[in-house]
Amino acid sequence: MRNILVIGAGRSSSSLITYLLQKSTTQNLHIIIADVSLELANGKLNKHPNGTAISLDIFNETERKQAIKNADIVVSMLPAHLHLNVAKDCLEFHKNMVTASYISNEMSLLNEQAIENGLIFMNEVGLDPGIDHMSAMKVLDSIREKGGKIILFESFTGGLVAPESDDNLWNYKFTWNPRNVVLAGQGGAAKFLQEGSYKYIPYHKLFRRTEILKIDGYGKFEGYANRDSLKYKSVYGLDNILTLYRGTIRRLGFSRAWNVFVQLGMTDDSYNITGSENMSYRDFMNSFLPYSPTDSVELKLRYKLKIDQDDIVWDKLEELDIFSKTKMVDLVRATPAEALQKILMDSWTLDPEDKDMIVMYHKFGYTLHGENHQIDATMVAIGEDQTYTAMAKTVGLPVAMATLAILNGKIKTPGVQIPIAKEVYEPILKELGEFGILFEEKEVPYLGYNPLNV
Amino acid sequence: MRNILVIGAGRSSSSLITYLLQKSTTQNLHIIIADVSLELANGKLNKHPNGTAISLDIFNETERKQAIKNADIVVSMLPAHLHLNVAKDCLEFHKNMVTASYISNEMSLLNEQAIENGLIFMNEVGLDPGIDHMSAMKVLDSIREKGGKIILFESFTGGLVAPESDDNLWNYKFTWNPRNVVLAGQGGAAKFLQEGSYKYIPYHKLFRRTEILKIDGYGKFEGYANRDSLKYKSVYGLDNILTLYRGTIRRLGFSRAWNVFVQLGMTDDSYNITGSENMSYRDFMNSFLPYSPTDSVELKLRYKLKIDQDDIVWDKLEELDIFSKTKMVDLVRATPAEALQKILMDSWTLDPEDKDMIVMYHKFGYTLHGENHQIDATMVAIGEDQTYTAMAKTVGLPVAMATLAILNGKIKTPGVQIPIAKEVYEPILKELGEFGILFEEKEVPYLGYNPLNV
Repeated sequence: MRNILVIGAGRSSSSLITYLLQKSTTQNLHIIIADVSLELANGKLNKHPNGTAISLDIFNETERKQAIKNADIVVSMLPAHLHLNVAKDCLEFHKNMVTASYISNEMSLLNEQAIENGLIFMNEVGLDPGIDHMSAMKVLDSIREKGGKIILFESFTGGLVAPESDDNLWNYKFTWNPRNVVLAGQGGAAKFLQEGSYKYIPYHKLFRRTEILKIDGYGKFEGYANRDSLKYKSVYGLDNILTLYRGTIRRLGFSRAWNVFVQLGMTDDSYNITGSENMSYRDFMNSFLPYSPTDSVELKLRYKLKIDQDDIVWDKLEELDIFSKTKMVDLVRATPAEALQKILMDSWTLDPEDKDMIVMYHKFGYTLHGENHQIDATMVAIGEDQTYTAMAKTVGLPVAMATLAILNGKIKTPGVQIPIAKEVYEPILKELGEFGILFEEKEVPYLGYNPLNV
Repeated sequence: MRNILVIGAGRSSSSLITYLLQKSTTQNLHIIIADVSLELANGKLNKHPNGTAISLDIFNETERKQAIKNADIVVSMLPAHLHLNVAKDCLEFHKNMVTASYISNEMSLLNEQAIENGLIFMNEVGLDPGIDHMSAMKVLDSIREKGGKIILFESFTGGLVAPESDDNLWNYKFTWNPRNVVLAGQGGAAKFLQEGSYKYIPYHKLFRRTEILKIDGYGKFEGYANRDSLKYKSVYGLDNILTLYRGTIRRLGFSRAWNVFVQLGMTDDSYNITGSENMSYRDFMNSFLPYSPTDSVELKLRYKLKIDQDDIVWDKLEELDIFSKTKMVDLVRATPAEALQKILMDSWTLDPEDKDMIVMYHKFGYTLHGENHQIDATMVAIGEDQTYTAMAKTVGLPVAMATLAILNGKIKTPGVQIPIAKEVYEPILKELGEFGILFEEKEVPYLGYNPLNV
């Protein structure tokens, strides 16, 4: 019997745990589900005989070390900043470890020790980061294998509402942490490469420079730039690439309407609004507009942002009831971002029967035998319900598959790593396909940014 | 013989030192001019018999304590963050102290000790802060003395180029630290009060919401909001005021053109541009615009910011040579703000014969016997040359006057303070008038923001 310790039984652990429990008999597994809430852990176990739910306070060193010592491999689904103590214990007790989080600086510093001890610390093996790495490396490697020179790589991911549950003008609902959605893009200018030139977009212009994406059967989407598109340039082996762009996917028209909040300053999280507890949504809106004893909040906004009377942006704003005199912000000393989040949650919270959708879109441009080519790879995953969401599946399944592959010795190379090696991504992508998480690849004309090639 | 120690012989000390030297015989003063550069100190002394120039390294504790011990009063014209050690020595050796800087938290914590020791630590007694406090308190006190209730206070200050030296389309040159001009307004939303409502403007909209100001004989100016207009609300006794706004003055049209840089992201100081050392001004501009193999940088910019072909904003940009293919940024890993500063300094550096100008504009709205009134107070100071600039005079003279008043026992109240007491501002404003630094006050119709009153 091999013991798999899963720390963290939150939303993103549902599919992960179910997968492991389903494999537990044939694979001879015992799953220990550890969470600070025993109730949550028990819920995820669902009385399966091949598992145990335990209460674990991650800050209690004795408890934590005991649990890790007893495991054969450790999966940490904790928030990213809590992985480090788990990783150090894994070093101490010689355990392999898997996370879906970005590698922190502290984590990367453990690489040498992990290698010395022959341990695998697999990170970024969820959705984004995770499936994005694996699906990109698969195509990049295949292009390089046939002798192609890669000149363009663009990659977009989005967590959206499924078409069957899409019933508002924004074509958007919160399928994950709403706070991250409100703050998205902040913290510095977006930086990327376009045809060999570095390009910069300040936050307040980010949502006005989108790229249109079309997926057969699902229609049009748009992508806006992530802050750092260049992060994986060397990791992916793209040091001489001309165009490198990573972005976030929304439905067409979302960004142009979202830009209203950005322009007004409503997404600012750096200061507190005096008197927010007694503000109506309308008062909140008015605090970003000049005083007038005669003009309405509506007209002041239309004038300030030059919104035509028949512009659908206006209908999107009205749909949120953001001009309401009676709905209250009702948060003490809220930041603008917190107040905005409250308003959006009224409208964008999933109904119990709603399903989510994950969309990923890669573009690969390359030169082969003197000619330019392009491959587009797209993936759409729809959630089953609010437990087995598309997000839970796409984050949890690759984590579970990587865990089992490490346990079974299929993944062998030690070190702190991300899933970019063929031994890692090939079997996982194949198995994800069996779960309906698969990429459609197709050759398209290479356009790049050069109309002479059209 | 009374010894006045002036630490710091930089640009803002010229008028200060000259004033004290001119009074030295009648007032029985000896002026010790201390600077890390003995040459600079000697230059300011100009061989006057009633002074001594010394070399002083402010970080050398022995030197510093010795100099302060020998003085009867200490004037610190150091950068603001260096006052604290001077202040602590002044406590140790029982010396009064004068600065033109904002009171830091650390400085304010010395208040109790200063009072216990009967010492006066006078701060914010330059121009802005300084003359703004004094001139505002004079009118505010006079309104309150006649029973008026203050409902509006707006205050604007600007350092500009004098009309006779104003020869560019921006009507602007750098008369002080260029870096502060490029970064002006950053660091958080501007906050102020309008007719009882708190209003917020994000940085990227700051330069599009200006107020027009007119000064007889000097024409029109505009003001944009400072970050925190509410800082002196309680200090000035304005806790129940309806409108409170502090701003920065530029010539009409400056802000709308400056907004181009803000919109592009060129004033960002938070990241470094890859390859800035080999960029032309045109390349720099292009890094904020989308790639195109066929369209010019000019047209991409016009299109992105919707600048009409006959808009004077365009001529302002061209005047800076910002589309030049041959002028180079020539700074290694510059931030956008640093590169922009370099470009602006080509055009906005004062010629040797240029003069600067300081403009201050206060509006006081008040209710008396059931009727609304308004007083506008304006001050314009023009520099004599590049030594006795308007900035040096308006910063240095009130510091010098406060120093002498403290030395002569005219200012008596001990503590860490700013010049808002009548015993301080009344004689200083009077004497400033003799130097041509004086406010014109006039009654105007109270408009507020309510057109019903027009």
